[in-house]
Amino acid sequence: MTAFKFFQNQWTPVINNFLEKKLAEEVEDKKISQIMAYSVMAGGKRLRPLLFLATLNSLGKEITDTEIRIACGIELIHTYSLIHDDLPAMDNDDYRRGKLTSHKKWGEAEAILAGDALLPLGIEWIAQASDSAKLVKVSTEAVGPNGMVGGQYLDIDSTNNASVSNDEQYINKMEWLKTGCLIKASVEMAAIYADATQIEMVKLIDFAKGFGRAYQIYDDLVDVVESSEQAGKATHKDKEEGKNNTLTLLGIEKSRSELVSLIKQTKQNLSGLNAEVLEGFLDLYQKVL
Amino acid sequence: MTAFKFFQNQWTPVINNFLEKKLAEEVEDKKISQIMAYSVMAGGKRLRPLLFLATLNSLGKEITDTEIRIACGIELIHTYSLIHDDLPAMDNDDYRRGKLTSHKKWGEAEAILAGDALLPLGIEWIAQASDSAKLVKVSTEAVGPNGMVGGQYLDIDSTNNASVSNDEQYINKMEWLKTGCLIKASVEMAAIYADATQIEMVKLIDFAKGFGRAYQIYDDLVDVVESSEQAGKATHKDKEEGKNNTLTLLGIEKSRSELVSLIKQTKQNLSGLNAEVLEGFLDLYQKVL
Repeated sequence: MTAFKFFQNQWTPVINNFLEKKLAEEVEDKKISQIMAYSVMAGGKRLRPLLFLATLNSLGKEITDTEIRIACGIELIHTYSLIHDDLPAMDNDDYRRGKLTSHKKWGEAEAILAGDALLPLGIEWIAQASDSAKLVKVSTEAVGPNGMVGGQYLDIDSTNNASVSNDEQYINKMEWLKTGCLIKASVEMAAIYADATQIEMVKLIDFAKGFGRAYQIYDDLVDVVESSEQAGKATHKDKEEGKNNTLTLLGIEKSRSELVSLIKQTKQNLSGLNAEVLEGFLDLYQKVL
Repeated sequence: MTAFKFFQNQWTPVINNFLEKKLAEEVEDKKISQIMAYSVMAGGKRLRPLLFLATLNSLGKEITDTEIRIACGIELIHTYSLIHDDLPAMDNDDYRRGKLTSHKKWGEAEAILAGDALLPLGIEWIAQASDSAKLVKVSTEAVGPNGMVGGQYLDIDSTNNASVSNDEQYINKMEWLKTGCLIKASVEMAAIYADATQIEMVKLIDFAKGFGRAYQIYDDLVDVVESSEQAGKATHKDKEEGKNNTLTLLGIEKSRSELVSLIKQTKQNLSGLNAEVLEGFLDLYQKVL
């Protein structure tokens, strides 16, 4: 078993248990707690919390309940973004991770509010466990108008806009903001929290940038390579809906070679760090290569 | 001129200028910046930022750009909540403060995203300017599932539900969460930020609780007492839409006498503090009495 697999098998259940237990215990109203937990517990890969924990691990920081709370705070924020992306006014998706999306299951007002509840709760967990305003700043910046939500806005603003379909700069920026920013923040938050040295910080952030960029290309490829049953959501949708992304820009084969070269480059960023686990995250992308 | 009026006249333009300038400067995408600013600059009373600043003032804390940023962060969060409340799936309002609501003006996806951008940006401003994880915790708790969003959920869950219309406990809780929590947090954040003594903290929080409870009764009364032209939004809507609130529970006259007694009690909480300005906030309610 690879170091990554071992780490993933060790911590994924810890993350899942924490999320399930704390959402039940700490959200007072049982109905909204259930609606929030429905999406949080829908079987995500826990990529962002695992990245946070693996970065701590690479810096020799011990992982306790405190660090798990920060990691899970990031996952709550990520889940909020999925719920709102799926809304009828946004991507209008009926399925996510093989289950009905929040608004299909509970109603649209409920889904908006579940997202609106998960975002501040995630930030609260980060603030409470880290006692660090800096970590809050990094995480909120990553998901605000100059981060994830800014990317969502560029996405809806450019859908079915032919003038954007060949604009590499626009597409790169949009994809980076939508997905890359929060992935990078997960690593950066761990580096700040664990008092990384300047050199470690630079290497980790370069790794995170490469990993985040690669993730988006991977995610676009999943859309065409996998059947919807494998992916647990509607695939082959991007093209039908006039979405612009790296894949529509480069085509499948060039996207794949771009991904291969990004993986190689991103591995190099980790040289000199104790980063066997972090390196293993890049294996995730093999399934579309 | 009362001390409150003087304070309000002094700081309202400072708050407005800060909001307008920073949203233009610090949000990179000019279109989403414009959509956010449209709602933020729609002419609110700036009640929550003024409460934050007036509490600092009562504790002898100097007000600089740093404190203005925290105050304005609270206003961004408040504005996000208004935009999402007005959405078609929620209250479905076409007008707010005499202008088209965000989704009527810009579209539904844009309004969802403008709210989703204002919330983390507001928290970012609070974290950045205060450098205090405690302030972040208080503000996020106030707007999360155990605060404002929890209240919104109770509201949508009980609309047109006759079994709730006589349930005083349910209605009190819903109103407190929807409106009271963030008002209380605005005062509490200032008390923490200015290192209030234990005694000052207790008095200020009691004041904030009374003021927040009174605000909701006031807001319900505005709905029936004012014409929609005066209020800048649709009035007389609550009853038509099957909303349950203190007013539908008690009727107009009993709501008024409840408000009068709350004002008296809340003033008493301030005795022994240098709180002439804070006391003046209670005069706001005269217009429905």
